[in-house]
Amino acid sequence: MKRRHCLSLLGTTPLLLSGCASVAGASGAPADLPLRGTGDLGVVVARATGTLAIVDTSQRTLLAQVTGLGDLSHASVVFSRDGRYAYVFGRDGALTKVDLLTRRITARVMQAGNSIGGAISADGSLVVAQNYTPGGIKAFNAATLELVADIPAAYENGQLSRVVGLVDLPGRRFAYSLFDANAIWITDLSDPARPVTTQLPNIGRQPYDALVTPNGRHYIAGLFGEDGLAMVDLWEEKPRARRILAGYGRGQEPLPVYKMPHLRGWAVAGRRAYLPAIGRHEVLVVDTDTWQEVGRIPVAGQPVFVMARPDGRQVWVNFSVPDYHRVQVIDTTTQSIVRTLEPGKAVLHMEFTPRGESVWISSRDDHRVSVIDTQSFATQATLSIDSPSGIFFTSRAARLGF
Amino acid sequence: MKRRHCLSLLGTTPLLLSGCASVAGASGAPADLPLRGTGDLGVVVARATGTLAIVDTSQRTLLAQVTGLGDLSHASVVFSRDGRYAYVFGRDGALTKVDLLTRRITARVMQAGNSIGGAISADGSLVVAQNYTPGGIKAFNAATLELVADIPAAYENGQLSRVVGLVDLPGRRFAYSLFDANAIWITDLSDPARPVTTQLPNIGRQPYDALVTPNGRHYIAGLFGEDGLAMVDLWEEKPRARRILAGYGRGQEPLPVYKMPHLRGWAVAGRRAYLPAIGRHEVLVVDTDTWQEVGRIPVAGQPVFVMARPDGRQVWVNFSVPDYHRVQVIDTTTQSIVRTLEPGKAVLHMEFTPRGESVWISSRDDHRVSVIDTQSFATQATLSIDSPSGIFFTSRAARLGF
Repeated sequence: MKRRHCLSLLGTTPLLLSGCASVAGASGAPADLPLRGTGDLGVVVARATGTLAIVDTSQRTLLAQVTGLGDLSHASVVFSRDGRYAYVFGRDGALTKVDLLTRRITARVMQAGNSIGGAISADGSLVVAQNYTPGGIKAFNAATLELVADIPAAYENGQLSRVVGLVDLPGRRFAYSLFDANAIWITDLSDPARPVTTQLPNIGRQPYDALVTPNGRHYIAGLFGEDGLAMVDLWEEKPRARRILAGYGRGQEPLPVYKMPHLRGWAVAGRRAYLPAIGRHEVLVVDTDTWQEVGRIPVAGQPVFVMARPDGRQVWVNFSVPDYHRVQVIDTTTQSIVRTLEPGKAVLHMEFTPRGESVWISSRDDHRVSVIDTQSFATQATLSIDSPSGIFFTSRAARLGF
Repeated sequence: MKRRHCLSLLGTTPLLLSGCASVAGASGAPADLPLRGTGDLGVVVARATGTLAIVDTSQRTLLAQVTGLGDLSHASVVFSRDGRYAYVFGRDGALTKVDLLTRRITARVMQAGNSIGGAISADGSLVVAQNYTPGGIKAFNAATLELVADIPAAYENGQLSRVVGLVDLPGRRFAYSLFDANAIWITDLSDPARPVTTQLPNIGRQPYDALVTPNGRHYIAGLFGEDGLAMVDLWEEKPRARRILAGYGRGQEPLPVYKMPHLRGWAVAGRRAYLPAIGRHEVLVVDTDTWQEVGRIPVAGQPVFVMARPDGRQVWVNFSVPDYHRVQVIDTTTQSIVRTLEPGKAVLHMEFTPRGESVWISSRDDHRVSVIDTQSFATQATLSIDSPSGIFFTSRAARLGF
């Protein structure tokens, strides 16, 4: 906590806002910072203040707040494979590397004008950002944030498409969707100096987000411009996109949609996937062998995140306005709601502890993060954090597609 | 490496061999040890010398060797949820807590006369050992190794059964099998002062090892005394054991078995499980919806460990003597062998990096650990370690049943 003021000052220097800056020698251990493991660390985005809160999921406490991260609306985070560093993708195009142990920014680069998230390679060597402006992806050396590859998403007449749905795949490959070009691209960055991109065109109109299944096999993009989804079996020798779930979408008489669901929130539990219906108060159940819809579960509002507890026994759902004070829990053995919780105003995100014994929930307008026991539903702790949104734990480093 | 000699000396003091000993204040950071993340750490058991080698899976290097751990034949390891501490279960009944950051033993207790492994609760608070002598399980405070619960596996006439197949379940519960009592027990240690044990008797003759599926739902014990396996659906309100795979076993004309397969090595990939046939040169393929056998894959010897790469695309197999210089790789999309490797003499164990880009393989008689790229099968590094056996990475802390 001592370092907070120092970081505030550093965060406003032009150096940090204009380029790659190493503000801390990352090796030595300051005398006042004890050695500690990183497996139970996490971060909470406090977007109103451009702050990253560092939390401890064993003690359920706030350890520190790192300021000076810029515009963190819609920010997302990936972690180095040692769990020490968080890479924060800001909406303003900044990519910031934060050392969770020294609690400092160690590098920061303005890499785009408008960015919407990123990914990290399995070997931890490459951090990749997906950008709206200019449209495309950029790959950075994870140690230094030096730019190592720039792949503009160029289509007709040299225009650049906005990029969404970026995920990491085995072998330093990345899949992503081109919103304006109706395409899915897979870029192999085995040799960052010579990227090799496979383009799948005409996958459907306006892919707006995507996910990869936990095994890295199926890449699925939601379509904004039509009903249905585009799916690619990445294990096929020549991957191709095919259309699934033609009934998934806003339908012929579109309902008002208050917030687009997040596809990365999709839950795969056992052989079923649970996904947010768009505009409807329903969670759809899909068989992942046939990719056919096999059920619908009525819920308390328009679902935003639909997330499986790591063991798949439960699926937790939050909602868009006006129902975003509620969270519902589905038991996947009975496909029914077993609990409705009201953890606070404006629930924006949820994150499970690695083995799922607890879930952390951010209630933005109550400036609170609640830690809830997923078996008893008792509140185990609450943390005061200014306008919390995304919650990300270091255990993501060990998982594909996170 | 500086500390190696020091630890050798400590390892021979009676204090360490006779009881719980805290030999290092675990908080301060010694000046020569830099801060570092723990997500990419692991240990290799060097059983001939009672040594634990600490390795870095990002740099693919040996960081340190900690001596004085006693008899490490058949040793197994679990990790604290922060990834900082390894709990080592020695065959001689010792439970040793090793700090991977300071590279020291921080606590050690002789907890039984003959022990065969252990588990840790999801919340990281309890470490549990399964014992042959005296038969039963014991639970320890993970911070101090203080004994907090002792559950003797008492059956007819007060005899104590040897315990095998211990796994952690959600909610500080543990499942295990009683070799001599033909039973499976599930003990709830929510309140360690008042353990509640559910006993399932008559599950089949002589359960010799067991596993829990990655979602924590199915507990499966192999039977030494008859063909077939015992399976418990832990999600049922009143769990009960039923018999599956009546053809699994040595058969009516038993073949010689050179080494019993390890059931924890079982691979579940997608909806199929891959398991070592006993005494036969085959891997069995089982449908996890029906628990029926759906195929057999011929392999190069009697399989010991059959392990899925984290994404389930590949299954790696090692073998008992005389074929234990080989490792084979099965592609699960085609159910066929795609590669046979010879990484060294006496391959005893394999461990995948968290996202599966590499596998580490121990070749005991070549005193070598090989790191192999799972896509290209190229050897990325080799490490010299004295008689290496089990390899365990800290990412296990985030997984159920490991």
